[in-house]
Amino acid sequence: MAICNQSHFKSISIDPTTNICRTSSSISRINTFRCNSSVASKTLKTEPEPVFTSVKSFAPATVANLGPGFDFLGCAVDGIGDFVSLRVDPDVHPGEISISDINGVGNSAKKLNKNPLWNCAGIAAISVMKMLGIKSVGLSLSLEKGLPLGSGLGSSAASAAAAAVAVNEMFGGKLSVSNLVLAGLDSEAKVSGYHADNVAPAIMGGFVLIRSYDPLDIIQLKFPIEKELFFVLVTPEFEAPTKKMRAALPSEIGMSDHVWNCSQAGALVASVLQGDLRGLGKAMSSDKIVEPRRAPLIPGMEGVKRAAIEAGAFGCTISGAGPTVVAVTDDDGRGREIGEQMVEAFLKEGNLKALVMVRRLDGVGARLVSSSPR
Amino acid sequence: MAICNQSHFKSISIDPTTNICRTSSSISRINTFRCNSSVASKTLKTEPEPVFTSVKSFAPATVANLGPGFDFLGCAVDGIGDFVSLRVDPDVHPGEISISDINGVGNSAKKLNKNPLWNCAGIAAISVMKMLGIKSVGLSLSLEKGLPLGSGLGSSAASAAAAAVAVNEMFGGKLSVSNLVLAGLDSEAKVSGYHADNVAPAIMGGFVLIRSYDPLDIIQLKFPIEKELFFVLVTPEFEAPTKKMRAALPSEIGMSDHVWNCSQAGALVASVLQGDLRGLGKAMSSDKIVEPRRAPLIPGMEGVKRAAIEAGAFGCTISGAGPTVVAVTDDDGRGREIGEQMVEAFLKEGNLKALVMVRRLDGVGARLVSSSPR
Repeated sequence: MAICNQSHFKSISIDPTTNICRTSSSISRINTFRCNSSVASKTLKTEPEPVFTSVKSFAPATVANLGPGFDFLGCAVDGIGDFVSLRVDPDVHPGEISISDINGVGNSAKKLNKNPLWNCAGIAAISVMKMLGIKSVGLSLSLEKGLPLGSGLGSSAASAAAAAVAVNEMFGGKLSVSNLVLAGLDSEAKVSGYHADNVAPAIMGGFVLIRSYDPLDIIQLKFPIEKELFFVLVTPEFEAPTKKMRAALPSEIGMSDHVWNCSQAGALVASVLQGDLRGLGKAMSSDKIVEPRRAPLIPGMEGVKRAAIEAGAFGCTISGAGPTVVAVTDDDGRGREIGEQMVEAFLKEGNLKALVMVRRLDGVGARLVSSSPR
Repeated sequence: MAICNQSHFKSISIDPTTNICRTSSSISRINTFRCNSSVASKTLKTEPEPVFTSVKSFAPATVANLGPGFDFLGCAVDGIGDFVSLRVDPDVHPGEISISDINGVGNSAKKLNKNPLWNCAGIAAISVMKMLGIKSVGLSLSLEKGLPLGSGLGSSAASAAAAAVAVNEMFGGKLSVSNLVLAGLDSEAKVSGYHADNVAPAIMGGFVLIRSYDPLDIIQLKFPIEKELFFVLVTPEFEAPTKKMRAALPSEIGMSDHVWNCSQAGALVASVLQGDLRGLGKAMSSDKIVEPRRAPLIPGMEGVKRAAIEAGAFGCTISGAGPTVVAVTDDDGRGREIGEQMVEAFLKEGNLKALVMVRRLDGVGARLVSSSPR
């Protein structure tokens, strides 16, 4: 495994020969990480014992909404995300968890609370511990932020997903994916509202559609693996708090806009499943309800979108609640060119510096990256 | 080819050895009838000559909306629909079309206008003649209605689709599917509004998503052929005019209902493409915007839906603007049982007699069923 630090974002490159991943009873290769199942039992009959003394997990960044998929669709992007290191700690009261360290990019480490009850990773970890019925073991957690806060790349979801998977793996991976998503939702609810369009893809990888919450019903949309798909992610130096972006939303929507966005949501899903990149981009760009209200809150956004399309992107929209802007293409080199044009547009039309990344889809989701057996 | 008449609906059983179908330059088998292409040229450079002296076409019934697919999704159902017979007629002024006969089920023949400018089939036929630039040949059209008017099964769209395909085939099948849909749209616009969720599947077959109108952009959603899918169609003796049903729609929609319906539209599309019948039924049943307003206008509808689900249907909703109610299942026999329960519920809770049909998906769409070469 090779991990390299960059200026703003952290990058992870994982050796497939060493990758391990959660399954119900054994360690398996990452490509088995799939689940469409509904929720399993929330608590186990007998308390499981830890199978490791320490584990380290990773959860990827995510792009939620994708235009007309507002609040119910998201996908994971590879190579960037958060790490959680977890160890059995006799100094921590049995059944409890302590956050020992938080470090990482930008101001995230300073801003985050070390009280696990007020920390995304802590809340998700506690939820998983409750589901597993952990009473006899104390845990110590260290969070390494690879994602800046409030960037629109699912920073809180990545922390929650990494923590949920770490705790579950520590005790033998007993919980279903749905339960891990529920644990992640407990965390998201306290930070940015009860929505799973970041945390579900952060845990499951790929494209994920949240069909319902009560009961939790998630559809994994399989993007054809033979197709090339690159996300151009451009993050300006600008804070766009989720709450402010949410307040910009209309409370009522006209029938024609509703029908339009519904049809584009359908087209978006069809494009993902059919591996139709042009269709995917077109659908991403088509939102008439959310993006028009939020774009004016991100200086230069309209010009950035125009620059992306003019540079050959199939589509472009706001990633999550912004300020990151996401475009899609089918070529790495073209993606870098598109990104350069978008960065330039942010500077020219929004007077904002911005960083660009070109990333593939992460088809794996949250997983262990290392572990120490007992 | 064997055609048999039934009491209320007409049934068609087509011998695959004799079926022929429109392609750009030759006659081919019906399973080649697929198109995702955008619009071709609207008019041809040289006027084509008729390649037949007469043709007979068929277009199937369609189920539009399917719950959250309101106004942009529809599918074709096999074995019922409208026929158009078309012949070169020297008594008709060159470049014009005359409607010689209208006959068929219920009151449709009496209610329909023989003036081609005020008849669904006539309007679509004229549009295709214009696109082809027909000036030297007069045509005579006979319409055989297999679908009652205002039933929610795409009666007007079936007439338009059959007529559009008949005229196109008469002159060698020069037009693209998109142009045929545009011709059908000219017709639908005068009857029930500018929407293609009936006429597109009536022409193309299968499930069709209307992505946009300007330009026309249509996505055919391929339902896996190995999966069994049966539509239970229950039509009460009750008139539910499209305009009245449309007036029942809300002008404004709350954000949470919008997001819900969008996510269900996405789930509906995913279920179709993945061949997930339970998911398809669940999505069909999930509409929170249109069905709740329209259901009270169809006496007994709520009870009929409940009866369908209790009898094992995967889902149930209003077909198009009603009053036909559609349920889905994966077994023919079960479909008949579900249908019986729905008919009983219409009688008991709505005091309405109803007829039931169990039909498969029509994967072909409008096609020639016979022709006489010149």
